[in-house]
Amino acid sequence: MADSLTAAIIAVGSELLTPHKTDTNSLVISEVLNDLGIAVGFKSVVGDSRDELTAHLSHAMARHTIVILCGGLGPTDDDLTRDVVAELLRLPMDEDPGIVAAMQKRFAARGWKMPEVNRRQAQVPRGAAVLENPHGTAPGLWLETGHHQLALLPGPPREMKPMMDGAVRQRLAAVAGGVRLHRRLVRVAGKGESAVEEIVQPIYSQWVQRPPRIETTILAGLGQVELHLVTQSVDAAVANAALDRAVAQLADALGHDLVSIDGTVLEAVVGGLLRQRGWWVAFAESCTGGLATSRMTDIAGSSEYVERSIVAYSNRAKIELLDVPESLIREHGAVSEAVAAAMAAGIRRRAQVNAGIGITGIAGPGGGSERKPVGTVCIAVDAGESSVRTFTFPGGRDMVKHLAATWAIDMLRRWLIKSLP
Amino acid sequence: MADSLTAAIIAVGSELLTPHKTDTNSLVISEVLNDLGIAVGFKSVVGDSRDELTAHLSHAMARHTIVILCGGLGPTDDDLTRDVVAELLRLPMDEDPGIVAAMQKRFAARGWKMPEVNRRQAQVPRGAAVLENPHGTAPGLWLETGHHQLALLPGPPREMKPMMDGAVRQRLAAVAGGVRLHRRLVRVAGKGESAVEEIVQPIYSQWVQRPPRIETTILAGLGQVELHLVTQSVDAAVANAALDRAVAQLADALGHDLVSIDGTVLEAVVGGLLRQRGWWVAFAESCTGGLATSRMTDIAGSSEYVERSIVAYSNRAKIELLDVPESLIREHGAVSEAVAAAMAAGIRRRAQVNAGIGITGIAGPGGGSERKPVGTVCIAVDAGESSVRTFTFPGGRDMVKHLAATWAIDMLRRWLIKSLP
Repeated sequence: MADSLTAAIIAVGSELLTPHKTDTNSLVISEVLNDLGIAVGFKSVVGDSRDELTAHLSHAMARHTIVILCGGLGPTDDDLTRDVVAELLRLPMDEDPGIVAAMQKRFAARGWKMPEVNRRQAQVPRGAAVLENPHGTAPGLWLETGHHQLALLPGPPREMKPMMDGAVRQRLAAVAGGVRLHRRLVRVAGKGESAVEEIVQPIYSQWVQRPPRIETTILAGLGQVELHLVTQSVDAAVANAALDRAVAQLADALGHDLVSIDGTVLEAVVGGLLRQRGWWVAFAESCTGGLATSRMTDIAGSSEYVERSIVAYSNRAKIELLDVPESLIREHGAVSEAVAAAMAAGIRRRAQVNAGIGITGIAGPGGGSERKPVGTVCIAVDAGESSVRTFTFPGGRDMVKHLAATWAIDMLRRWLIKSLP
Repeated sequence: MADSLTAAIIAVGSELLTPHKTDTNSLVISEVLNDLGIAVGFKSVVGDSRDELTAHLSHAMARHTIVILCGGLGPTDDDLTRDVVAELLRLPMDEDPGIVAAMQKRFAARGWKMPEVNRRQAQVPRGAAVLENPHGTAPGLWLETGHHQLALLPGPPREMKPMMDGAVRQRLAAVAGGVRLHRRLVRVAGKGESAVEEIVQPIYSQWVQRPPRIETTILAGLGQVELHLVTQSVDAAVANAALDRAVAQLADALGHDLVSIDGTVLEAVVGGLLRQRGWWVAFAESCTGGLATSRMTDIAGSSEYVERSIVAYSNRAKIELLDVPESLIREHGAVSEAVAAAMAAGIRRRAQVNAGIGITGIAGPGGGSERKPVGTVCIAVDAGESSVRTFTFPGGRDMVKHLAATWAIDMLRRWLIKSLP
C-alpha cells in the first residue's frame, strides 16, 4: 500500500554541518518522494564519520523502508557512503569494469589519465544497480533488500537532481504504485498572510472534507503570499478537475489580489500584461536604487517592454532628469506623494512610454523623522491618469527596498488589469 | 574536556519536511556551538510525530551529550517537544505559575484574555530551568541530567536566536570550559575558486602543522570567493595574533584581488573608498537592468556617493540620455567595448560625477550570436582615464546579471585602489 510508504533522507558531508552551508538536496528529494505519495519521516545531515553514518543509517532503516543517501560518493578516504552501506547490509564489494571504463573515457576526453584513487568510485556492493551520472564521475547506486529500498546519490546538486528526477523516480514509482501528488501554486499580492488566511480559510477548510482531499499550505513572502494546493490521487483527471474548481473558488474570493494561479511570478505576470497591450514602461526610482527595474528585467524578453529607467538618487537628478520642480521638493520634501507623482509623470513624458512609475522613500537606517519615519515610501503610477499611495514598510533597509519594489510592480499590475478593455 | 563535547540538533515541525521550507535555525545553533568548541555530530528535521520524535531524541541522546531541540513548543496538540522530553527522561510535569502570569500579562497588553490552550506552554518537566522569551509566548527550557544537557527552543527564528545567543550560550559555555572559536572572513574577487586555491593552498597548508592550528575553508560565490579561517583556543590574544599573521600572508599573496580581511562586502568596501576620496559615482546599465546600482545602494549611507544611474535598456535611451553616437551602435553593435566606454563617459559627463561605469551585454536566453554569445558583457569605468573589458559569463540570465554587476563594482574598486594617492 502506497499510504504506508515512508522515507528517510540522509545528507552526508562535514561541510553541511558548518554554519555556512545548508542542505538543499533534501528539498528536491522530498518533492519527488511527495509526488509519488511517499511521506518523509525525517531528514538528517551527518558528517564524514563512519561511526555516525553507520548509527544514523541503521536508525533510519529500523524506522523506514526507503532511505535516500546523498553525498559521500567521491574518490577520497572521506567518502564513506558506499562502504558504510555495504558493511551494514553485509554485502561484499566488487569493482565494476563498466564504471572504470566510463571514468577513463571521461578523463581521456580532457586529455587526462584517470587517477588511481577514482577506482574507489567503481566499487559496487553486490546486487546494486548502477545509476549513470552524465554530469560527474560518481555513479549513483540503487539497492533493494527484502524490506528496504536504498538510493545512494552524489552530493553536487547538478549531479543529484537529474538522477533523482530520472532513474530513482522511476524505481520509486514502481515501488509506490499509481498514487501521485498533483499541485497548484496560487500567488497573491497586496495582502498580508493573516488577511489572506481570513479570506481563504472558509474555502479551503471544505476541501479536506470530501475526496479528493486537497491540502492547502499558506507561505508568506515579502509583500506576497503563496497558496500551495496539493492532492493525492491515482487518477490525474479527477485530481486536476478538483484543483481547477478549487483555484476558481480562490480566484473569485481574492479578486484583484490574485496574481497568478499557475505559479507565474509577479514580474512575469506584469510583463505578460504589458506585452498583451503592446505597452512600454519606464521607472523613476529613488530609494529602491534600481531594484524594481532589475526585478522587471529578470524576465527574459523584458527588453520588449522595459524602455529605460532613471535611478534619481540625488535631488539634482530628480530635477535634471525627471523635471521635478525644485519648489515641489522644497515644499513637500523629496519623499512625498507630490514628488512621486512628478517623477512618474516626468519619466513617462521624457521616455515617451505608456506608463511611468515613480518611487521615493526612506530606506533607512538614517533619514527618518517623526512625521516620515524610516520605511515611508510614496509610489505613483502614471499612465495618463495617475494613482499614488504612501506606505510605511516595516523592517530594515533591504526589506524596505524589497517591499517598495514589489508594491510598485504590483500597482502597475493593478493599473493594467483595471484599464484592460 | 571540551574536546570530547558533541551535540545533536533536532528541528521539529512537519512544515520543515515539505519541499518548500528549509531549516535555518540549525545554522545559528551550529555557529554558537562551534564558537564554544562544541562539534555538531548530526542535525535532523522530524515532523510533529510523537513516535518519530521519541525515536530520534533517544538516538541523539545515545550518541551525544548535548541535544538542542527547536520547535514544537506551541500551545496546540501538534506541539509535542515538551511531552516527549519529559516522557523519555521520566520526569513529571508541573504547571509553572510564573509562565502563566507572564502569558496572561502578554495577552492583557493587547486587550485579550489568554486562551486556555496556552496553559500547555506553562507545563515544565520537573527540574528544568525556564528560559524567558521576550519575543513570544513559548518559553524555552534547559535540562541537565547526569549525562546530558538539553535545550528546548521555540521554532520561530526571531524567538529562537536571542535565546540561543543569550541564556543557552551562557549555560553551554559553563559546560564547555574556556575553549572558544576565533574566526576571520577574507573576501576575494576577480578569481575563480580553483585559481584562489592554487595561490592560498601552499600558505594555509602550513597553518595546520603547528599550534594554534588554523583551519581554512574556501567557499565559492558568484564572482567572489570567501576564505573562512577558524582557530580554537582558550587564549584569545594568542588566537588573534595567529589569525592576524595568517591574514597578512593571504593579503600579500592575493594583492589587488583581496577585497577585505574582516568580512566587509564588496559594495561596502567600494563605498568606503569613494567616501575616503569624497567621490561621486553614477552607473549606466543596460543588461544588468539596475542591479549594479541596487547592490551599491544596499549599503546604508550610499546616498553620499551614488548620485544617479541610468538603465538604458533601449538604444534610444543610450543615445538620448548618455550621448552614445548612433553611428557607434550601428558600427560596433550595442554590446561592444566602444559603446560601454561611451556609456561610461556619457553618464560621467551628464551627471558631473568623478566616475562613470558603463555595462552592456547579452543576458540571454535570446539575443546571442556566434561572435557574441549569451553571456558576453562589456564593462567600462571612466574616471578621466578609462578602462574597458569584455567578459563571457557562464550560466543563465540571473547569473549573467549577477556576475556582470559584481565585476562592474569590482572594476571600480580596482580603479579606486590604483588611483589612491
